[in-house]
Amino acid sequence: MEKRISGHTGLMGLFGTPVGHSGSPAMYNFSFQHDGLDYAYLAFDVTEEQMPKVFETIRLLNMRGGNFTMPCKNIAAELVDKLSPAAEIIGACNVFVNDNGVITGHVTDGVGFVKNLEVNGVDVKGKKTVVLGAGGAATAIQVQLALDGAKEVAIFNVKDKFFDRAQGTKEKLAEKCPECIVTVNDMEDKEKLAEAVNHCDIVINATTMGMKPHDDVSLIDKSLYRKDLVVADTVYSPEKTKMILEAEEAGCKAIGGKGMLQQQGAVNYELFVGKKMPLEEYNKFQAEQAK
Amino acid sequence: MEKRISGHTGLMGLFGTPVGHSGSPAMYNFSFQHDGLDYAYLAFDVTEEQMPKVFETIRLLNMRGGNFTMPCKNIAAELVDKLSPAAEIIGACNVFVNDNGVITGHVTDGVGFVKNLEVNGVDVKGKKTVVLGAGGAATAIQVQLALDGAKEVAIFNVKDKFFDRAQGTKEKLAEKCPECIVTVNDMEDKEKLAEAVNHCDIVINATTMGMKPHDDVSLIDKSLYRKDLVVADTVYSPEKTKMILEAEEAGCKAIGGKGMLQQQGAVNYELFVGKKMPLEEYNKFQAEQAK
Repeated sequence: MEKRISGHTGLMGLFGTPVGHSGSPAMYNFSFQHDGLDYAYLAFDVTEEQMPKVFETIRLLNMRGGNFTMPCKNIAAELVDKLSPAAEIIGACNVFVNDNGVITGHVTDGVGFVKNLEVNGVDVKGKKTVVLGAGGAATAIQVQLALDGAKEVAIFNVKDKFFDRAQGTKEKLAEKCPECIVTVNDMEDKEKLAEAVNHCDIVINATTMGMKPHDDVSLIDKSLYRKDLVVADTVYSPEKTKMILEAEEAGCKAIGGKGMLQQQGAVNYELFVGKKMPLEEYNKFQAEQAK
Repeated sequence: MEKRISGHTGLMGLFGTPVGHSGSPAMYNFSFQHDGLDYAYLAFDVTEEQMPKVFETIRLLNMRGGNFTMPCKNIAAELVDKLSPAAEIIGACNVFVNDNGVITGHVTDGVGFVKNLEVNGVDVKGKKTVVLGAGGAATAIQVQLALDGAKEVAIFNVKDKFFDRAQGTKEKLAEKCPECIVTVNDMEDKEKLAEAVNHCDIVINATTMGMKPHDDVSLIDKSLYRKDLVVADTVYSPEKTKMILEAEEAGCKAIGGKGMLQQQGAVNYELFVGKKMPLEEYNKFQAEQAK
């Protein structure tokens, strides 16, 4: 790196807490170096309360772009100069791009998810979808499905505080994407869930079920799987969740969460530097490092 | 570098304008990598007016240390929490160290200069010195010579705005280092300059004379050189100024400015991380890069 960082090198970075474990610095710095781009990407541990100062820092250091993670995504949407359509509907952003002092907030959780479906040969346009969950990632996916022309988005969630959020998403989408049918349903209503899965094209888990310590849980009964159903998970650790394993066994097209994470990184990278991220090369590099 | 920067990597940096040409990022990053220290050093172009925000950024990003350069050195001394003795006398700092939120300002131009004399076998203690110039670097050197026990510091400067600054340095040193005799003299008084050089041990150029476009200028008449005189220059480009070449020809111990710059970097590095900088290794690395 002593050859790479000079007095001209621009800073990018991730803000949130905790961030020490983040894989983003490694991925973006590899890509900058691979593409001969003069940026360095670091992670900074900041709280929600510090976010107004984070924005002063972004402007002061003339940072080209970067990311926000928990718990800073919502406050970030209030502090940017502009919001992408999805970020405006969701009221959160995980990406910022600084165009000569004008900072735009984007939300790419949903875009990354839809891109990963595309990479796996699945187009969401005109499709009926079932999305389990109503948290941040779930909401981003629901909004992106609607923006990208899905015919139906059936949201299922337990009756916790996120249930109201799902109602809010439904209302916002009714206004912004009136051609998409959005419903909000109780996850406990197993009959309704079974019926929705039976009549949909794509079922998506956007809860933390399947992730440790819930790795023995799948919210969809495996008896509902059929060969022409696409089953997608946002959980990426384990790489194959119980849901994905059961769906594979039943002959469904099963798509795990890891690709979503990478596609999201690639979407961010393109927003930062206007180039396709060297994802394949990075995966190869990582595999070599792991040896 | 994709292996080196992670989510835990700490930021250090240089603030001032212009900074793009600075060699500091290359030198410090090489050293961090060499020593296995988890920092990255970048340069940030900021104005004097932005310095209060720079300090907020240093605290927000928890930067361990860094440097200030023109035109930000004086205002920096007003914004730090504590000042080193030399920085307090000079009212400027080119280095900051952040100890868990307490930011101390140091000035190391003078320390680097004196260290470089030491490296070249010259001890300033008890010595009579002549210093040409009264700008930032000149002042730092004058103060450090006095702090390190020089017997006399004869300052020579043309009667410009810096002449008053030299008077101020004399007054401050009379208070802080009363055992050191400091005089302020008109550079145009060639007779007095000749007399001072004849009676001193070390003559130091701390003006920009000798640097392009003044590379055909030396402020000391070569007829004044004698074998037991030490002649030192702060100009490092060209590496051998007219003054240094003429002093070498006369058999003086002649010490160019490049070593001062490097010793200063080494002093800074030690303040940042408490370790000796791998200067020899860096010089070797640079020589290889230049091939």
